[in-house]
Amino acid sequence: MADGHVVALSGGVGGAKLALGLSRILPPDRLTIVANTGDDFTHLGLTICPDLDTVMYTLADLSNKEAGWGLAGESWNFLDALSALGGEDWFRLGDRDLATHITRTRWLAEGRSLSTVTGDLCRRLGVAHPIVPMSDDPVPTIVELKDGGDLAFQHYFVRDQCEPVVAGFRFEGIERAAPAAGFADALARSDLDCVVICPSNPFVSVDPVLKLPGVQAALDGSDAPVVAVSPIVGGQALKGPAAKMMDELGMPRDPVSVARHYAGRIDGLVIDEADLDSADLVREAGPAATVTQTVMVTLADREQLARDTLAFAASLRA
Amino acid sequence: MADGHVVALSGGVGGAKLALGLSRILPPDRLTIVANTGDDFTHLGLTICPDLDTVMYTLADLSNKEAGWGLAGESWNFLDALSALGGEDWFRLGDRDLATHITRTRWLAEGRSLSTVTGDLCRRLGVAHPIVPMSDDPVPTIVELKDGGDLAFQHYFVRDQCEPVVAGFRFEGIERAAPAAGFADALARSDLDCVVICPSNPFVSVDPVLKLPGVQAALDGSDAPVVAVSPIVGGQALKGPAAKMMDELGMPRDPVSVARHYAGRIDGLVIDEADLDSADLVREAGPAATVTQTVMVTLADREQLARDTLAFAASLRA
Repeated sequence: MADGHVVALSGGVGGAKLALGLSRILPPDRLTIVANTGDDFTHLGLTICPDLDTVMYTLADLSNKEAGWGLAGESWNFLDALSALGGEDWFRLGDRDLATHITRTRWLAEGRSLSTVTGDLCRRLGVAHPIVPMSDDPVPTIVELKDGGDLAFQHYFVRDQCEPVVAGFRFEGIERAAPAAGFADALARSDLDCVVICPSNPFVSVDPVLKLPGVQAALDGSDAPVVAVSPIVGGQALKGPAAKMMDELGMPRDPVSVARHYAGRIDGLVIDEADLDSADLVREAGPAATVTQTVMVTLADREQLARDTLAFAASLRA
Repeated sequence: MADGHVVALSGGVGGAKLALGLSRILPPDRLTIVANTGDDFTHLGLTICPDLDTVMYTLADLSNKEAGWGLAGESWNFLDALSALGGEDWFRLGDRDLATHITRTRWLAEGRSLSTVTGDLCRRLGVAHPIVPMSDDPVPTIVELKDGGDLAFQHYFVRDQCEPVVAGFRFEGIERAAPAAGFADALARSDLDCVVICPSNPFVSVDPVLKLPGVQAALDGSDAPVVAVSPIVGGQALKGPAAKMMDELGMPRDPVSVARHYAGRIDGLVIDEADLDSADLVREAGPAATVTQTVMVTLADREQLARDTLAFAASLRA
């Protein structure tokens, strides 16, 4: 393994698992975790950053591993009382989780950036590795529906349980948004070893990060390979609507579609043993490919996938 | 008992007890409960109205009767998590209580008045009797300290546990504040039978209500008697810092001081059996006086004091 810097791009659950694995094998000064904030939204007057919080809670070892979101040992008394008041209870805000949202909303209102706020929250939760929002500017993901309408992302994802048929996505204001300084600085490091795209939804978790102004140019201008881990395993997304979205967008739900989606943007794709047969087709689509176990059940799985991914990236750099 | 309207002015715990008693013997169209909002403050970005909420929760039968504030069966997981984040945890915000503050803050941000918001909250909590904030305008109580400093009320009351020695009080912006429409309209009713000043702190719970522009003129212009229930019983305040404040302001802690404080503003004072000996001195200070049991332990006590107070008022009107 080289001794340079690694940038990991992550959405929520699956991405956070690999980010955790990377954090277990790299010291804090060798890893920058960049979280998608396209799924951020304002709810009940609070600024809520679901992917960012999932990464933060996962690295703080506070996450609810069964649910895949929120905090372990969470209680729901606020939400029960809100329901009794007839409030909007479709987004499940736990009692302990609320402390994060209220603190963040207050700090943002004081004029601090989301990067600073995230850094402060991480410090207080004992997270040693830097977690950076992709941008300090709001870039809300809008889901464009096949029936012609638009949905704010969390309305699509949580309220409507991903049921509407999607036609596309846009990231509102992205042309005016800047990558957060911690993200841009990490990409510009002369000792950048590789960029890892964690197994997150390509359309709504990774694209917002990659499509921020200047990011693709920085990746193109760097010697560091960009390696993605396929979020599609055996025709399924382990979590979330990626496979359903592929159906609706007319793509076969396999790693080849992932490779094609990232064509020209990644140097290598890590695919699961279940998709061994797709390896050559992935390579034909552009990137190099490696096959390993990508399903992360145990902590050891997370560390092993992190090791395999970094080794694969090193092989591409060599 | 007459069949006109009653206006009850209330602070927190003690006042809410009598307001509850009144609500048990008067139908909703014969009672308007006006709550002090001088103790309102913004905390963690939320608009919090402690006295108003105590009255609301008490009438909704949701209040924590042991603590005297907050909700019964409350949990504190939000506050624990906030403490872990290093947040300001001196004001005890329960998980269920938070739903009220978040909902109110959001509705106020949408441009609704505190009166409208309070009415909506009461409807959703099943409170039939109208509860009105004294004003829709902020009138924050400032505690003037003997050592020359100032303290915002909740900082004095909760954070500093009423320890600083007081020299006086002011109600910021009161000269520009208007009584809430529901309050002014109730005072202007031609069928107003009486105004009851519940056993609340005269300095910080009742004075802000009475000193709102136009209130004293409305009381002076009405035939309805104003009757207060002494919050001082046997030299003690049953709850809160009223007796300590009297010491610090150089007043004997007895109902006579209460009568003198309200001189020219009340027609009658209800005092406790423990203060029987003070009755004549109270009368010398100005108002009529009646002696009864004012300590409200049971629900029956609350109803009985309500009956006694209304009967006393009726005797003054006769």
